[in-house]
Amino acid sequence: MSIEFPPVPRPDDAAREQARARQQQLTKPTGALGRLEDLSIWLAGMQGYCPPEAPKRVRVVIFAGDHGVASAGVSAYPAEVTAQMVANFVAGGAAVNVLADRVGARVRVVDIAVAHEAVDVPADVTKWHVRKASGRIDIEDALTVDETEQAIEVGRQLADDEIDIGADLLIPGDMGIGNTTPAAVLIGVRTGNAAAVVTGRGTGIDDATLDHKRAVVAAAMARAAAKSGDPVALLSTAGGADIAAMAGFLAQAAVRRTPVVLDGVVSGAAALVAEQLAPGAKAWWCAGHRSVEPAHGLALRQLGLEPLVDLGLRLGEGTGALLAVPLLGAAADTLARMATFDEAQVSDRAADA
Amino acid sequence: MSIEFPPVPRPDDAAREQARARQQQLTKPTGALGRLEDLSIWLAGMQGYCPPEAPKRVRVVIFAGDHGVASAGVSAYPAEVTAQMVANFVAGGAAVNVLADRVGARVRVVDIAVAHEAVDVPADVTKWHVRKASGRIDIEDALTVDETEQAIEVGRQLADDEIDIGADLLIPGDMGIGNTTPAAVLIGVRTGNAAAVVTGRGTGIDDATLDHKRAVVAAAMARAAAKSGDPVALLSTAGGADIAAMAGFLAQAAVRRTPVVLDGVVSGAAALVAEQLAPGAKAWWCAGHRSVEPAHGLALRQLGLEPLVDLGLRLGEGTGALLAVPLLGAAADTLARMATFDEAQVSDRAADA
Repeated sequence: MSIEFPPVPRPDDAAREQARARQQQLTKPTGALGRLEDLSIWLAGMQGYCPPEAPKRVRVVIFAGDHGVASAGVSAYPAEVTAQMVANFVAGGAAVNVLADRVGARVRVVDIAVAHEAVDVPADVTKWHVRKASGRIDIEDALTVDETEQAIEVGRQLADDEIDIGADLLIPGDMGIGNTTPAAVLIGVRTGNAAAVVTGRGTGIDDATLDHKRAVVAAAMARAAAKSGDPVALLSTAGGADIAAMAGFLAQAAVRRTPVVLDGVVSGAAALVAEQLAPGAKAWWCAGHRSVEPAHGLALRQLGLEPLVDLGLRLGEGTGALLAVPLLGAAADTLARMATFDEAQVSDRAADA
Repeated sequence: MSIEFPPVPRPDDAAREQARARQQQLTKPTGALGRLEDLSIWLAGMQGYCPPEAPKRVRVVIFAGDHGVASAGVSAYPAEVTAQMVANFVAGGAAVNVLADRVGARVRVVDIAVAHEAVDVPADVTKWHVRKASGRIDIEDALTVDETEQAIEVGRQLADDEIDIGADLLIPGDMGIGNTTPAAVLIGVRTGNAAAVVTGRGTGIDDATLDHKRAVVAAAMARAAAKSGDPVALLSTAGGADIAAMAGFLAQAAVRRTPVVLDGVVSGAAALVAEQLAPGAKAWWCAGHRSVEPAHGLALRQLGLEPLVDLGLRLGEGTGALLAVPLLGAAADTLARMATFDEAQVSDRAADA
């Protein structure tokens, strides 16, 4: 098996131009809605229509997976929590469930590489399982090349699944004790930043653990440095099955012309690799929020994406992206429903001249 | 007549403590929801109950008023636009109407000092009229002391009105060509910043007009400097009837234990004066967003408020505050509805020890 994605289509330039022109005619000073105006133009390009609609069928797919590095003592939580949280997602008790409910989004969780057995979860959660925990990347590969390609393919199928049943906006969520470690490694390698710069506190580790985590990230980055240009080799050496699946999901969403709101540092890492798998895919993504993880901002900068929300979140699961969904709706609705100067008989600034 | 507000009650400390404690028990790392956690604690203090509810009866009151300084050439738009936009608000075609619809908020517009007649507007809009445009503050007072007190009283009555019919969250909106000029003056005087620092481009003026506007702001600040400690004298000298009414509205909301989401630079200026009218009122306000007007951030800093949304808006009307309403709902709902570690049988970090 060898993974290839078809060329990524461009967003619709004509719809973007129509949106830009319409923004000039609405009853407000030009530019006064700030980034909402840019967002409305982006959405028009995604949907190929002006005015675009507020996204209505939003789906969060949570890629759950454990990481061997957790046993190296890089997290504040035991690895059992990954499987326990998978059950919590299924039961509807996690932050992502509550925030998804608020915006009418549905949440799907898939076990890509969970180490422990989740209790009381349906078969659609577990049937995507690639392996039990990815390898301990400071001393061994995360995955074989076959497993990496299998994980990317799983992510591609999940994107196809969601789009085929009507999703008009996708959000990648993550769950995995230790997963900010491979995320920092991938971002460090892809952006050329050192371990000391990209390593953060994840779930909230103390200073001593942070020092140790930096050493782990540095060791994994040294193992992966030469693989920077080859996305499959990079994911195999220092990624993980959950991140590989998320990368396949992000790449395929773009191939299928479906917009994505990225979440935190794990989706930022997956996005950097997905852009390698499917060049141009980033045009189909927006950045939901800025996490406090230092590597996240570096990943977004490299992707040329500016986060919409910046409230100090560091939870993952898709939570930060869900906070941005109402902003997309606000952008679409203002463009579609505000009166123009003509309609409302309001004087435009030209009247001043 | 002399304006006095009763003492402002403190938010409920017991409910705040309960909210803080509950945040520790939810299935997420402590602090991982960032400022949403702080916001949930703030809401608990507002409502005197834990968990607090997502605000359900949100009301925007738009204080419309013209300003004599508009004739000094400080705006990109003609003064007729104020009355035209009042009609647009009534007809439902403005950005604030669209954004209010999205969050289920109602919009009320009141003519406090509009210069031109708005067409086809109901009596409830015009019955709050104090005078036709406030004075040209670079060379004359904005209002007499009687008019100032009348305007503050109108704002107080509007807050009472809305709270009596059940509002659980209030948003002050503004509409008035030229209104960023008195806002800059009030903020400059109250925060001790120079005209060159506090003056912004408002609706989007060019460099030459900005230079001129700075001189106008400097002249008005010179007239008002000695009045900084007396809110009624300050509003009378260099404010305006719309801003005075908004200040009364903000002060009374706090007296009535009703939370407020502040909007942009005009509500920031009104808030600084309202805190003088009713010390402690600021505990009942949160900052919806940061406008691009430079004075706005200075006002928020002095009030000790950190904006929730920062998307480069500069429209006023209450639009920036409305974008923050879903965040309040997200904060309330996560606190109320997430599972605890015990309920979900998820291991807390203590299990790591």
